[in-house]
Amino acid sequence: MTTIDEPTTHTGKAFELSRRATLMPASPIRRLAPLADAAKARGTRVYHLNIGQPDIETPACMRERLRQLDERVLEYSPSTGTPDFLRSLQHYYEHRVGVSLSTSQILATTGGSEALLFAFMACANPGDDVMMLEPFYANYRSFTTMAGLEIVPVTSRGRDGFHIPAREAWERALTPRTRIVALCNPNNPTGTVYGPDELRMIADFCREHGLFLISDEVYREFVYDGKKAMSALELENAEEFVIVVDSLSKRYSACGIRLGSLVTRNREIYDACWRMAQGRLSPPGIAQFIAVGAMELGEEYTREVVAEYQRRRDVLYEGLTSIPGVFLAKPEGAFYCVAKLPVDDANEFASWLLSDFQHEGATVMVAPASGFYASDLGRNEVRIAYVLNETDLRAAVEVLRNSLSAYK
Amino acid sequence: MTTIDEPTTHTGKAFELSRRATLMPASPIRRLAPLADAAKARGTRVYHLNIGQPDIETPACMRERLRQLDERVLEYSPSTGTPDFLRSLQHYYEHRVGVSLSTSQILATTGGSEALLFAFMACANPGDDVMMLEPFYANYRSFTTMAGLEIVPVTSRGRDGFHIPAREAWERALTPRTRIVALCNPNNPTGTVYGPDELRMIADFCREHGLFLISDEVYREFVYDGKKAMSALELENAEEFVIVVDSLSKRYSACGIRLGSLVTRNREIYDACWRMAQGRLSPPGIAQFIAVGAMELGEEYTREVVAEYQRRRDVLYEGLTSIPGVFLAKPEGAFYCVAKLPVDDANEFASWLLSDFQHEGATVMVAPASGFYASDLGRNEVRIAYVLNETDLRAAVEVLRNSLSAYK
Repeated sequence: MTTIDEPTTHTGKAFELSRRATLMPASPIRRLAPLADAAKARGTRVYHLNIGQPDIETPACMRERLRQLDERVLEYSPSTGTPDFLRSLQHYYEHRVGVSLSTSQILATTGGSEALLFAFMACANPGDDVMMLEPFYANYRSFTTMAGLEIVPVTSRGRDGFHIPAREAWERALTPRTRIVALCNPNNPTGTVYGPDELRMIADFCREHGLFLISDEVYREFVYDGKKAMSALELENAEEFVIVVDSLSKRYSACGIRLGSLVTRNREIYDACWRMAQGRLSPPGIAQFIAVGAMELGEEYTREVVAEYQRRRDVLYEGLTSIPGVFLAKPEGAFYCVAKLPVDDANEFASWLLSDFQHEGATVMVAPASGFYASDLGRNEVRIAYVLNETDLRAAVEVLRNSLSAYK
Repeated sequence: MTTIDEPTTHTGKAFELSRRATLMPASPIRRLAPLADAAKARGTRVYHLNIGQPDIETPACMRERLRQLDERVLEYSPSTGTPDFLRSLQHYYEHRVGVSLSTSQILATTGGSEALLFAFMACANPGDDVMMLEPFYANYRSFTTMAGLEIVPVTSRGRDGFHIPAREAWERALTPRTRIVALCNPNNPTGTVYGPDELRMIADFCREHGLFLISDEVYREFVYDGKKAMSALELENAEEFVIVVDSLSKRYSACGIRLGSLVTRNREIYDACWRMAQGRLSPPGIAQFIAVGAMELGEEYTREVVAEYQRRRDVLYEGLTSIPGVFLAKPEGAFYCVAKLPVDDANEFASWLLSDFQHEGATVMVAPASGFYASDLGRNEVRIAYVLNETDLRAAVEVLRNSLSAYK
C-alpha cells in the first residue's frame, strides 16, 4: 500500500492525480447513498440513522436576522471574522464555557472543518503523525490526508464506554514523528464524554512530549444526566499547546451556515492560522451576521435542546440494548453511539438493509463503523445518530430488531 | 532559506510550528493596515486603492431572497452543492460562457479560494512545482504553501502589456517536477486579458508536458473595449487537463457570501475534489440559496457593471499616465493594474504615504507589487484596484500625483 510519506516522485504518467488525492477517503456512507435512493424509489421509507443533521429548529433569533440584513453590498468580512461575531464568541466562552479570552485568540472559520484543517496544517509537517483515539470522526482522515499526516490510533473499547485508555497505551503508541494528539470531546462517533482526569492525563502526556492538543469540542453542550464537558481551554498550564476547534453547527442546529472557530492562546499558532485565513479572505458573511443573534439565547435554550436529546438517547439506548446480540455503551454526550451488532460485516449488513430488507415498508440506514477506525477493528460495529424524533427513533429500532432476526 | 521540499524532520523543539506555517505568507498589505488605521485616527482620509472589494451593489434579486428563505432548520447542503445552485451554474455556463456542462462536472466551493486549494491539492504532490505567470495574485502562494508546492515564475512584463511570453520562456522554466500551470484570466493583478492564441499556446504546452492547467476565471465578465475573455473550458482537446476556478464574488459583487465553483471534465480530478468536499461537508447554505436569484439577471446587468468599470479604468489610466515617471499598460480587464512608479522601493513609499503624507487631508493606500512576484522583481511597482467611484478615483490620482512630487 502506498503511504503518505513515501518519496513524492511521480510515475511520469501525464495528468496523474496527486497521491493525497488518491488517498483521500470517500465518506463512509457514500457507497450506501445510491442504495438508499433505490430503496426510496421502490417506495420503502428509509430512517436515516447515519447522519448527524439535527431536526431541531435553528433558533428564530438567528433566522430572523436574515430579514434584518440590509447591506447593499455583501462585502468581504475581515479574515479573522467580523468584530461583532468575534465579540459574540468571546461572550459565549466567557459566560457559557467559563473561559476568558481576548478576541485575538479566536479565529472565525468556515465551520469546524476549516478550523481542523488549519490546526493540522499549522502543527505538523507532511509525514508527521497525529495520535487519535479510535474510533474517530471519519472526516478527520480527510484533513490529515490534505495535510499529509498519518493517523496513529490509540484504541478505545466499547466495554470501557470508549473512555480513554491508560497513559501506558499512549506511551506505547508514541512515535518519533508524533506532533499532535487530536481529541473529540464529547465524542463523535462514540458519544463518550471524557472527565477532567482523562483530559489532564492527555494534557500531561502532550506537555511532556511537546505535542499539540487539538481538541474538537463541537458537541460541547450535548452532555446528559446533568453532567458537563470540560473544555481543553480549562486545562492548567496548557496555553502553549491547546488548540480548540469549535462550531456553531450543532450548538444552534445551524449546520448549513458553515461557521466555526479556532481558539488558541499560542500566539504563533494563532498567527499561522490567521495567515491561512488571510489566504482564503473571509469566513461566510451572512452566516456571521445571523450568528450574532445567538447572543439572545439564554441557558434555557441549551437545557431544552439537551433534554430533548437525552430523551432520544434513552429511547435509543433502551431499544437497542433490548435487541439480542446488540451491545453499546450508554452514550454520555453528543448524539451518536457506536453499537456492536451480531453480524460479521457491518458494511454488508448496511447494504443488505437498504437493498434486500424492509419491515412494514421501512428500513434503516446506518454508518458502518470501519470508516471510523484506522486499524482493522470495528467491522461488526455501526455508528448510529439519534437526530430523529422519538416516534421515528422507536420505529427505526423496531426495523433494526426485525432485520437482525431476518439477517442470516 | 528553508524551502518546502527539504526533509520534513523537526528540530526537536517542543510545540514547534510546521514549516508550511512558517512559510505561509501574510497578506501583502498586512504591514500597512495599522499605518492606515493610524492615518484615519489622525483625521486623514485614506483612499483604498489596495483592495478588490467592489462598491457595486449586490443585485437585489439575490439580496431579496434573504427574505424568502423560510427553512426552519439551516441544514447541511450536499457536499457538491444544492441541486438548484448547481443547475443555476450549469445555466450560467451554457448561456453566458457558451459551454455545455453536466452538473456532475461542477463542484460548488466556498469561494474561488477553496476551489484553488482543492485543485492544487489534487494535481500535485508536496515538493512539486507550479508554473505561474508573475506578477500573480498574491494569495496563490497561501494555497501552494498549504499544498506544499513551489512556484516557478515565468515573468510577464509591463512593456508587453503583461501578456504571455513566448513558448520558449515556458520551456526554459519547466522543471522535472512541474505538474501544473496556473493562470488567472482576466488577470489579477495586471488587468491583462489573454487572447485565444495565448491560451492555445499554453494548452499545447500543458498537453505536451502532461501538466494540468488551473484557470482562475473569477474576473471573466470584466473585459473592456467590447472584447470577451475566452474560457479555458472552450479550449479544444483540453478536457483531460483543464480545471477552471470560478467565483460569484466579483461577478455579482457578492464577495462576502463565499461561493465559487470548480469545473472540470476530468472525472478523476472531479472525484478527488468531491472527496475533499465531503470532508468539509458543505459549501455555505444561505449563500447557495440567494445565489440562485442571479438567474434572473440578464446580460444587461453585466453590460452595465462592465461599462461602469470601463469608465473607472479610463479615469485611472488617463490620470496615472499623466503623472511624470508613472508607467502602466492599459488594463484590458478585471479591475486592477500594476503601475511602475518613480520610486526605488514601493514598500517604503506605500508606508510613507500612510505615515508621512497627506494632500488636502487625504492620502492613498496601495499594495506594493513585490508580494505578487516570486522573483525579486516588482520593487518599484504597485497594484492599484479601481473599485472606487469616479470622483474618489480622480481625487486619489491627484493625491498620488502630489505625493510623488513630494517624495524625495
